Amino acid sequence: MEVLARLAKTIESRQGADVKKSYAAKLFSRGKSKCAEKFGEEAIEAIIAAAKGNRKNLTEEAADVLFHMLVMLTACGVSLDDVMKELQRREGTSGIEEKRARATG
Amino acid sequence: MEVLARLAKTIESRQGADVKKSYAAKLFSRGKSKCAEKFGEEAIEAIIAAAKGNRKNLTEEAADVLFHMLVMLTACGVSLDDVMKELQRREGTSGIEEKRARATG
Amino acid sequence: MEVLARLAKTIESRQGADVKKSYAAKLFSRGKSKCAEKFGEEAIEAIIAAAKGNRKNLTEEAADVLFHMLVMLTACGVSLDDVMKELQRREGTSGIEEKRARATG
Amino acid sequence: MEVLARLAKTIESRQGADVKKSYAAKLFSRGKSKCAEKFGEEAIEAIIAAAKGNRKNLTEEAADVLFHMLVMLTACGVSLDDVMKELQRREGTSGIEEKRARATG
Repeated sequence: MEVLARLAKTIESRQGADVKKSYAAKLFSRGKSKCAEKFGEEAIEAIIAAAKGNRKNLTEEAADVLFHMLVMLTACGVSLDDVMKELQRREGTSGIEEKRARATG
Repeated sequence: MEVLARLAKTIESRQGADVKKSYAAKLFSRGKSKCAEKFGEEAIEAIIAAAKGNRKNLTEEAADVLFHMLVMLTACGVSLDDVMKELQRREGTSGIEEKRARATG
Repeated sequence: MEVLARLAKTIESRQGADVKKSYAAKLFSRGKSKCAEKFGEEAIEAIIAAAKGNRKNLTEEAADVLFHMLVMLTACGVSLDDVMKELQRREGTSGIEEKRARATG
Repeated sequence: MEVLARLAKTIESRQGADVKKSYAAKLFSRGKSKCAEKFGEEAIEAIIAAAKGNRKNLTEEAADVLFHMLVMLTACGVSLDDVMKELQRREGTSGIEEKRARATG
Protein backbone atom coordinates (compact mmCIF):
# COMPACT_ATOMS: atom_id res chain seq x y z
CA MET A 1 0.00 0.00 0.00
CA GLU A 2 3.08 2.20 0.43
CA VAL A 3 2.88 2.99 -3.26
CA LEU A 4 -0.38 4.89 -2.82
CA ALA A 5 1.14 7.09 -0.10
CA ARG A 6 4.16 7.75 -2.33
CA LEU A 7 1.89 8.62 -5.27
CA ALA A 8 -0.10 11.04 -3.10
CA LYS A 9 3.14 12.75 -2.02
CA THR A 10 4.36 13.04 -5.61
CA ILE A 11 1.04 14.50 -6.77
CA GLU A 12 0.99 17.01 -3.91
CA SER A 13 4.51 18.10 -4.84
CA ARG A 14 3.31 18.87 -8.39
CA GLN A 15 1.16 21.82 -7.32
CA GLY A 16 2.67 24.82 -9.06
CA ALA A 17 5.10 22.67 -11.06
CA ASP A 18 5.80 23.16 -14.78
CA VAL A 19 2.67 22.18 -16.71
CA LYS A 20 4.82 20.97 -19.59
CA LYS A 21 6.67 18.51 -17.43
CA SER A 22 3.90 17.27 -15.14
CA TYR A 23 0.49 15.92 -16.12
CA ALA A 24 -0.78 16.54 -12.57
CA ALA A 25 0.46 20.15 -12.70
CA LYS A 26 -1.41 20.59 -15.98
CA LEU A 27 -4.63 19.32 -14.40
CA PHE A 28 -4.18 21.54 -11.32
CA SER A 29 -3.73 24.57 -13.58
CA ARG A 30 -7.17 23.96 -15.07
CA GLY A 31 -8.99 24.04 -11.76
CA LYS A 32 -10.77 21.63 -9.48
CA SER A 33 -13.84 21.13 -11.68
CA LYS A 34 -11.58 19.96 -14.51
CA CYS A 35 -9.81 17.59 -12.08
CA ALA A 36 -13.22 16.26 -11.02
CA GLU A 37 -14.20 15.80 -14.66
CA LYS A 38 -11.06 13.77 -15.41
CA PHE A 39 -11.68 11.61 -12.34
CA GLY A 40 -15.18 11.03 -13.66
CA GLU A 41 -13.91 9.93 -17.06
CA GLU A 42 -11.66 7.34 -15.46
CA ALA A 43 -14.47 6.15 -13.21
CA ILE A 44 -16.63 5.55 -16.28
CA GLU A 45 -13.88 3.59 -18.01
CA ALA A 46 -13.56 1.42 -14.89
CA ILE A 47 -17.33 0.89 -14.83
CA ILE A 48 -17.35 -0.24 -18.45
CA ALA A 49 -14.42 -2.61 -17.86
CA ALA A 50 -16.22 -4.08 -14.83
CA ALA A 51 -19.54 -4.45 -16.64
CA LYS A 52 -17.75 -6.31 -19.45
CA GLY A 53 -15.80 -8.43 -16.96
CA ASN A 54 -12.47 -7.36 -18.46
CA ARG A 55 -10.05 -7.92 -15.56
CA LYS A 56 -6.91 -6.56 -17.19
CA ASN A 57 -8.65 -3.36 -18.28
CA LEU A 58 -10.30 -2.99 -14.89
CA THR A 59 -6.94 -3.26 -13.12
CA GLU A 60 -5.51 -0.47 -15.27
CA GLU A 61 -8.59 1.71 -15.01
CA ALA A 62 -8.70 1.30 -11.22
CA ALA A 63 -5.10 2.55 -11.10
CA ASP A 64 -6.20 5.54 -13.22
CA VAL A 65 -9.15 6.14 -10.89
CA LEU A 66 -6.80 6.26 -7.88
CA PHE A 67 -4.38 8.62 -9.64
CA HIS A 68 -7.11 11.02 -10.69
CA MET A 69 -8.89 10.79 -7.34
CA LEU A 70 -5.67 11.92 -5.67
CA VAL A 71 -5.38 14.81 -8.14
CA MET A 72 -9.00 15.82 -7.46
CA LEU A 73 -8.52 15.56 -3.69
CA THR A 74 -5.30 17.60 -3.79
CA ALA A 75 -6.93 20.25 -5.98
CA CYS A 76 -9.62 20.57 -3.30
CA GLY A 77 -7.24 20.65 -0.33
CA VAL A 78 -8.14 17.16 0.92
CA SER A 79 -5.28 14.76 1.70
CA LEU A 80 -5.16 11.00 1.29
CA ASP A 81 -4.68 10.91 5.05
CA ASP A 82 -8.00 12.67 5.58
CA VAL A 83 -9.73 9.95 3.57
CA MET A 84 -7.88 7.15 5.37
CA LYS A 85 -8.92 8.65 8.72
CA GLU A 86 -12.52 8.64 7.51
CA LEU A 87 -12.22 4.94 6.60
CA GLN A 88 -10.63 4.30 10.01
CA ARG A 89 -13.48 6.10 11.75
CA ARG A 90 -15.90 3.73 10.04
CA GLU A 91 -14.03 0.55 10.97
CA GLY A 92 -16.10 -1.67 13.19
CA THR A 93 -19.26 -0.17 11.75
CA SER A 94 -20.93 -2.48 9.27
CA GLY A 95 -21.70 -1.04 5.86
CA ILE A 96 -25.40 -1.45 6.59
CA GLU A 97 -25.23 0.66 9.77
CA GLU A 98 -22.94 3.14 8.03
CA LYS A 99 -25.40 3.53 5.18
CA ARG A 100 -28.30 3.95 7.60
CA ALA A 101 -26.48 6.59 9.62
CA ARG A 102 -25.85 8.70 6.54
CA ALA A 103 -29.09 7.92 4.76
CA THR A 104 -30.74 10.94 3.23
CA GLY A 105 -32.83 9.20 0.68
CA MET B 1 -2.69 3.17 4.61
CA GLU B 2 -3.04 -0.11 6.48
CA VAL B 3 -6.74 0.61 6.80
CA LEU B 4 -7.29 0.21 3.05
CA ALA B 5 -5.64 -3.24 3.08
CA ARG B 6 -7.79 -4.23 6.07
CA LEU B 7 -10.92 -2.98 4.31
CA ALA B 8 -10.04 -4.96 1.18
CA LYS B 9 -9.62 -8.10 3.30
CA THR B 10 -12.94 -7.57 5.05
CA ILE B 11 -14.76 -7.02 1.77
CA GLU B 12 -13.20 -10.12 0.21
CA SER B 13 -14.31 -12.15 3.22
CA ARG B 14 -17.92 -11.05 2.61
CA GLN B 15 -18.27 -13.02 -0.62
CA GLY B 16 -21.02 -15.51 0.06
CA ALA B 17 -21.83 -14.00 3.46
CA ASP B 18 -25.36 -13.38 4.72
CA VAL B 19 -26.88 -10.58 2.63
CA LYS B 20 -28.89 -9.42 5.63
CA LYS B 21 -25.81 -8.91 7.72
CA SER B 22 -23.36 -7.56 5.17
CA TYR B 23 -23.88 -4.66 2.75
CA ALA B 24 -20.96 -5.91 0.61
CA ALA B 25 -22.50 -9.39 0.47
CA LYS B 26 -25.77 -7.84 -0.67
CA LEU B 27 -23.97 -6.01 -3.48
CA PHE B 28 -22.06 -9.15 -4.53
CA SER B 29 -25.34 -11.07 -4.72
CA ARG B 30 -26.62 -8.60 -7.31
CA GLY B 31 -23.75 -9.11 -9.72
CA LYS B 32 -20.76 -7.16 -10.97
CA SER B 33 -22.74 -4.69 -13.09
CA LYS B 34 -24.69 -3.63 -10.01
CA CYS B 35 -21.42 -3.25 -8.08
CA ALA B 36 -20.08 -1.10 -10.93
CA GLU B 37 -23.26 0.99 -10.87
CA LYS B 38 -22.93 1.65 -7.14
CA PHE B 39 -19.29 2.63 -7.58
CA GLY B 40 -20.44 5.05 -10.29
CA GLU B 41 -23.01 6.64 -7.99
CA GLU B 42 -20.37 7.32 -5.37
CA ALA B 43 -17.98 8.68 -8.00
CA ILE B 44 -20.64 11.17 -9.09
CA GLU B 45 -21.26 12.28 -5.51
CA ALA B 46 -17.51 12.86 -5.12
CA ILE B 47 -17.43 14.84 -8.38
CA ILE B 48 -20.27 17.09 -7.21
CA ALA B 49 -18.59 17.65 -3.83
CA ALA B 50 -15.33 18.54 -5.59
CA ALA B 51 -17.01 20.88 -8.10
CA LYS B 52 -18.69 22.69 -5.21
CA GLY B 53 -15.46 22.78 -3.20
CA ASN B 54 -17.08 21.05 -0.24
CA ARG B 55 -14.08 19.48 1.53
CA LYS B 56 -15.96 17.63 4.26
CA ASN B 57 -18.35 16.06 1.78
CA LEU B 58 -15.52 15.21 -0.58
CA THR B 59 -13.62 13.41 2.19
CA GLU B 60 -16.67 11.26 2.95
CA GLU B 61 -17.47 10.61 -0.68
CA ALA B 62 -13.87 9.65 -1.44
CA ALA B 63 -14.09 7.06 1.35
CA ASP B 64 -17.31 5.78 -0.25
CA VAL B 65 -15.59 5.65 -3.64
CA LEU B 66 -12.78 3.51 -2.21
CA PHE B 67 -15.21 1.17 -0.46
CA HIS B 68 -17.31 0.66 -3.58
CA MET B 69 -14.26 0.40 -5.83
CA LEU B 70 -13.05 -2.48 -3.66
CA VAL B 71 -16.46 -4.14 -3.90
CA MET B 72 -16.44 -3.74 -7.69
CA LEU B 73 -12.89 -5.08 -7.98
CA THR B 74 -13.66 -8.06 -5.76
CA ALA B 75 -16.83 -8.83 -7.72
CA CYS B 76 -14.67 -8.95 -10.86
CA GLY B 77 -11.87 -11.05 -9.36
CA VAL B 78 -9.35 -8.21 -9.18
CA SER B 79 -7.51 -7.67 -5.90
CA LEU B 80 -6.31 -4.41 -4.34
CA ASP B 81 -2.84 -5.87 -4.69
CA ASP B 82 -3.25 -6.17 -8.46
CA VAL B 83 -4.05 -2.45 -8.64
CA MET B 84 -1.17 -1.50 -6.34
CA LYS B 85 1.20 -3.52 -8.53
CA GLU B 86 -0.06 -1.61 -11.54
CA LEU B 87 0.65 1.70 -9.76
CA GLN B 88 4.09 0.38 -8.81
CA ARG B 89 4.79 -0.57 -12.41
CA ARG B 90 4.07 3.02 -13.42
CA GLU B 91 6.34 4.57 -10.76
CA GLY B 92 9.17 6.48 -12.34
CA THR B 93 7.07 7.05 -15.45
CA SER B 94 5.70 10.57 -15.61
CA GLY B 95 1.96 10.91 -16.08
CA ILE B 96 2.60 12.53 -19.46
CA GLU B 97 4.62 9.54 -20.74
CA GLU B 98 2.14 7.14 -19.16
CA LYS B 99 -0.74 8.86 -20.93
CA ARG B 100 1.14 8.83 -24.24
CA ALA B 101 1.98 5.14 -23.94
CA ARG B 102 -1.65 4.22 -23.45
CA ALA B 103 -3.12 6.84 -25.79
CA THR B 104 -5.75 5.49 -28.10
CA GLY B 105 -7.48 8.68 -28.97
CA MET C 1 -41.05 13.86 -30.55
CA GLU C 2 -44.07 15.70 -29.15
CA VAL C 3 -43.88 13.46 -26.10
CA LEU C 4 -40.59 15.04 -24.99
CA ALA C 5 -42.09 18.54 -25.15
CA ARG C 6 -45.12 17.35 -23.16
CA LEU C 7 -42.84 15.72 -20.58
CA ALA C 8 -40.82 18.93 -20.24
CA LYS C 9 -44.04 20.89 -19.66
CA THR C 10 -45.26 18.42 -17.05
CA ILE C 11 -41.94 18.50 -15.20
CA GLU C 12 -41.86 22.31 -15.23
CA SER C 13 -45.37 22.38 -13.79
CA ARG C 14 -44.18 20.23 -10.86
CA GLN C 15 -42.01 22.96 -9.37
CA GLY C 16 -43.47 23.67 -5.97
CA ALA C 17 -45.96 20.78 -6.23
CA ASP C 18 -46.68 18.34 -3.39
CA VAL C 19 -43.54 16.22 -2.85
CA LYS C 20 -45.70 13.29 -1.81
CA LYS C 21 -47.58 13.30 -5.08
CA SER C 22 -44.82 14.13 -7.54
CA TYR C 23 -41.43 12.47 -7.90
CA ALA C 24 -40.13 15.51 -9.83
CA ALA C 25 -41.33 17.84 -7.05
CA LYS C 26 -39.48 15.68 -4.53
CA LEU C 27 -36.27 15.96 -6.55
CA PHE C 28 -36.69 19.75 -6.95
CA SER C 29 -37.11 20.09 -3.18
CA ARG C 30 -33.69 18.53 -2.66
CA GLY C 31 -31.84 21.06 -4.79
CA LYS C 32 -30.08 21.13 -8.12
CA SER C 33 -27.03 19.11 -7.03
CA LYS C 34 -29.32 16.25 -6.03
CA CYS C 35 -31.10 16.50 -9.39
CA ALA C 36 -27.69 16.38 -11.11
CA GLU C 37 -26.74 13.35 -9.03
CA LYS C 38 -29.88 11.46 -10.02
CA PHE C 39 -29.27 12.31 -13.69
CA GLY C 40 -25.77 10.89 -13.25
CA GLU C 41 -27.10 7.65 -11.79
CA GLU C 42 -29.35 7.13 -14.78
CA ALA C 43 -26.53 7.99 -17.18
CA ILE C 44 -24.39 5.27 -15.59
CA GLU C 45 -27.19 2.72 -15.88
CA ALA C 46 -27.51 3.59 -19.57
CA ILE C 47 -23.73 3.25 -20.03
CA ILE C 48 -23.75 -0.21 -18.46
CA ALA C 49 -26.70 -1.32 -20.60
CA ALA C 50 -24.90 -0.07 -23.73
CA ALA C 51 -21.58 -1.69 -22.81
CA LYS C 52 -23.40 -4.99 -22.32
CA GLY C 53 -25.35 -4.53 -25.54
CA ASN C 54 -28.68 -4.90 -23.74
CA ARG C 55 -31.10 -3.09 -26.07
CA LYS C 56 -34.24 -3.38 -23.96
CA ASN C 57 -32.47 -2.06 -20.88
CA LEU C 58 -30.81 0.69 -22.86
CA THR C 59 -34.16 1.87 -24.23
CA GLU C 60 -35.57 2.13 -20.70
CA GLU C 61 -32.46 3.75 -19.27
CA ALA C 62 -32.34 6.30 -22.10
CA ALA C 63 -35.93 7.26 -21.23
CA ASP C 64 -34.81 7.65 -17.60
CA VAL C 65 -31.85 9.77 -18.71
CA LEU C 66 -34.18 12.11 -20.62
CA PHE C 67 -36.60 12.40 -17.69
CA HIS C 68 -33.84 13.18 -15.21
CA MET C 69 -32.05 15.51 -17.62
CA LEU C 70 -35.25 17.54 -17.88
CA VAL C 71 -35.53 17.62 -14.08
CA MET C 72 -31.90 18.77 -13.80
CA LEU C 73 -32.36 21.43 -16.49
CA THR C 74 -35.56 22.73 -14.90
CA ALA C 75 -33.91 22.85 -11.47
CA CYS C 76 -31.21 25.05 -13.02
CA GLY C 77 -33.57 27.32 -14.93
CA VAL C 78 -32.71 25.92 -18.37
CA SER C 79 -35.59 24.94 -20.67
CA LEU C 80 -35.75 22.11 -23.20
CA ASP C 81 -36.21 24.88 -25.77
CA ASP C 82 -32.84 26.41 -24.83
CA VAL C 83 -31.17 23.07 -25.52
CA MET C 84 -33.02 22.56 -28.78
CA LYS C 85 -31.96 26.04 -29.90
CA GLU C 86 -28.36 25.11 -29.13
CA LEU C 87 -28.71 21.97 -31.28
CA GLN C 88 -30.27 24.10 -34.03
CA ARG C 89 -27.40 26.57 -33.86
CA ARG C 90 -25.01 23.69 -34.49
CA GLU C 91 -26.91 22.30 -37.48
CA GLY C 92 -24.84 22.44 -40.61
CA THR C 93 -21.67 22.36 -38.55
CA SER C 94 -20.03 18.94 -38.63
CA GLY C 95 -19.27 17.34 -35.29
CA ILE C 96 -15.58 17.56 -36.10
CA GLU C 97 -15.70 21.35 -36.62
CA GLU C 98 -18.00 21.72 -33.61
CA LYS C 99 -15.53 19.82 -31.44
CA ARG C 100 -12.62 21.88 -32.75
CA ALA C 101 -14.41 25.17 -32.11
CA ARG C 102 -15.05 24.28 -28.51
CA ALA C 103 -11.81 22.38 -27.89
CA THR C 104 -10.16 23.26 -24.62
CA GLY C 105 -8.11 20.19 -24.16
CA MET D 1 -38.28 19.37 -31.24
CA GLU D 2 -37.94 18.59 -34.96
CA VAL D 3 -34.23 19.29 -34.62
CA LEU D 4 -33.70 16.22 -32.41
CA ALA D 5 -35.38 13.95 -34.99
CA ARG D 6 -33.23 15.49 -37.73
CA LEU D 7 -30.09 15.00 -35.64
CA ALA D 8 -30.99 11.35 -35.02
CA LYS D 9 -31.46 10.83 -38.78
CA THR D 10 -28.11 12.47 -39.57
CA ILE D 11 -26.31 10.36 -36.98
CA GLU D 12 -27.92 7.15 -38.25
CA SER D 13 -26.80 8.03 -41.78
CA ARG D 14 -23.19 8.29 -40.55
CA GLN D 15 -22.88 4.57 -39.87
CA GLY D 16 -20.13 3.36 -42.20
CA ALA D 17 -19.30 6.91 -43.36
CA ASP D 18 -15.74 8.22 -43.74
CA VAL D 19 -14.23 8.51 -40.27
CA LYS D 20 -12.18 11.50 -41.40
CA LYS D 21 -15.25 13.44 -42.41
CA SER D 22 -17.70 12.47 -39.68
CA TYR D 23 -17.16 12.60 -35.92
CA ALA D 24 -20.09 10.20 -35.42
CA ALA D 25 -18.59 7.75 -37.93
CA LYS D 26 -15.32 7.90 -36.00
CA LEU D 27 -17.11 7.05 -32.76
CA PHE D 28 -19.05 4.19 -34.39
CA SER D 29 -15.79 2.73 -35.71
CA ARG D 30 -14.49 2.45 -32.15
CA GLY D 31 -17.37 0.34 -30.91
CA LYS D 32 -20.35 0.72 -28.63
CA SER D 33 -18.36 0.77 -25.37
CA LYS D 34 -16.38 3.76 -26.65
CA CYS D 35 -19.64 5.49 -27.63
CA ALA D 36 -20.98 4.80 -24.14
CA GLU D 37 -17.78 6.20 -22.62
CA LYS D 38 -18.08 9.43 -24.60
CA PHE D 39 -21.73 9.79 -23.56
CA GLY D 40 -20.57 9.38 -19.97
CA GLU D 41 -17.97 12.11 -20.32
CA GLU D 42 -20.59 14.55 -21.56
CA ALA D 43 -22.99 13.53 -18.79
CA ILE D 44 -20.30 14.35 -16.20
CA GLU D 45 -19.66 17.75 -17.77
CA ALA D 46 -23.40 18.46 -17.59
CA ILE D 47 -23.48 17.36 -13.94
CA ILE D 48 -20.62 19.70 -13.04
CA ALA D 49 -22.26 22.61 -14.88
CA ALA D 50 -25.53 21.94 -13.02
CA ALA D 51 -23.86 21.60 -9.62
CA LYS D 52 -22.14 24.94 -10.19
CA GLY D 53 -25.35 26.53 -11.45
CA ASN D 54 -23.73 27.56 -14.73
CA ARG D 55 -26.73 27.87 -17.07
CA LYS D 56 -24.86 28.65 -20.29
CA ASN D 57 -22.50 25.72 -19.80
CA LEU D 58 -25.35 23.43 -18.84
CA THR D 59 -27.25 24.32 -22.02
CA GLU D 60 -24.23 23.43 -24.16
CA GLU D 61 -23.44 20.28 -22.22
CA ALA D 62 -27.06 19.09 -22.41
CA ALA D 63 -26.84 19.45 -26.20
CA ASP D 64 -23.64 17.37 -26.10
CA VAL D 65 -25.38 14.77 -23.93
CA LEU D 66 -28.20 14.44 -26.47
CA PHE D 67 -25.78 14.17 -29.40
CA HIS D 68 -23.71 11.48 -27.70
CA MET D 69 -26.77 9.65 -26.39
CA LEU D 70 -28.00 9.36 -29.97
CA VAL D 71 -24.60 8.04 -31.06
CA MET D 72 -24.63 5.49 -28.22
CA LEU D 73 -28.21 4.42 -29.02
CA THR D 74 -27.45 4.07 -32.74
CA ALA D 75 -24.29 2.07 -32.01
CA CYS D 76 -26.48 -0.33 -30.01
CA GLY D 77 -29.28 -0.58 -32.56
CA VAL D 78 -31.79 1.47 -30.54
CA SER D 79 -33.61 4.30 -32.32
CA LEU D 80 -34.75 7.64 -30.91
CA ASP D 81 -38.25 6.45 -31.77
CA ASP D 82 -37.86 3.42 -29.47
CA VAL D 83 -37.03 5.77 -26.60
CA MET D 84 -39.88 8.14 -27.41
CA LYS D 85 -42.28 5.18 -27.45
CA GLU D 86 -41.01 4.20 -24.02
CA LEU D 87 -41.69 7.75 -22.74
CA GLN D 88 -45.13 7.60 -24.34
CA ARG D 89 -45.85 4.28 -22.65
CA ARG D 90 -45.13 5.93 -19.31
CA GLU D 91 -47.36 8.95 -19.91
CA GLY D 92 -50.16 9.10 -17.43
CA THR D 93 -48.08 7.14 -14.95
CA SER D 94 -46.67 9.34 -12.22
CA GLY D 95 -42.92 9.15 -11.67
CA ILE D 96 -43.57 7.72 -8.22
CA GLU D 97 -45.63 4.81 -9.59
CA GLU D 98 -43.15 4.37 -12.44
CA LYS D 99 -40.27 4.14 -10.00
CA ARG D 100 -42.14 1.68 -7.82
CA ALA D 101 -43.04 -0.54 -10.78
CA ARG D 102 -39.43 -0.83 -11.82
CA ALA D 103 -37.93 -0.89 -8.35
CA THR D 104 -35.39 -3.61 -7.87
CA GLY D 105 -33.63 -2.20 -4.92
